Amino acid sequence: MKAKVYVTLKNGVLDPQGKAIEGALKNLGLVGIDNVRQGKYIELELGATDPVEARALIEKACRDLLANTVMENYTITIEP
Amino acid sequence: MKAKVYVTLKNGVLDPQGKAIEGALKNLGLVGIDNVRQGKYIELELGATDPVEARALIEKACRDLLANTVMENYTITIEP
Repeated sequence: MKAKVYVTLKNGVLDPQGKAIEGALKNLGLVGIDNVRQGKYIELELGATDPVEARALIEKACRDLLANTVMENYTITIEP
Repeated sequence: MKAKVYVTLKNGVLDPQGKAIEGALKNLGLVGIDNVRQGKYIELELGATDPVEARALIEKACRDLLANTVMENYTITIEP
């Protein structure tokens, strides 16, 4: 099975990387782009064959390591 | 409109961050997780109203800034 995890900053949390990208895009003359937010996209291959078991494992991985749940949200998709 | 960009390392390119995550997960006792690959997930708000125009703008942003096309792939989704 394959898991995909998207870790994004919670609304209201300042995103300096996003701001830096926004400024750089403007410097490149690419206008009309605002509110840039950068997060992490993580792909993981799982030995588990049961989707419920796989999701529980990745939920724990997110809570324990992949996301700082104080200021980040995470979304998980499980694929066969 | 809203654009979502996923930037991932090309196959065959070593991913030290992915390896570090993999090791840390094992140290936490989370086994059965392999081939961890970490990339960037970027959200951008666009003033454009035409999806074709929006995609062209983001394609240029990816080629010029968001992705290092020598070693990274990028995927774009455009949402109304």
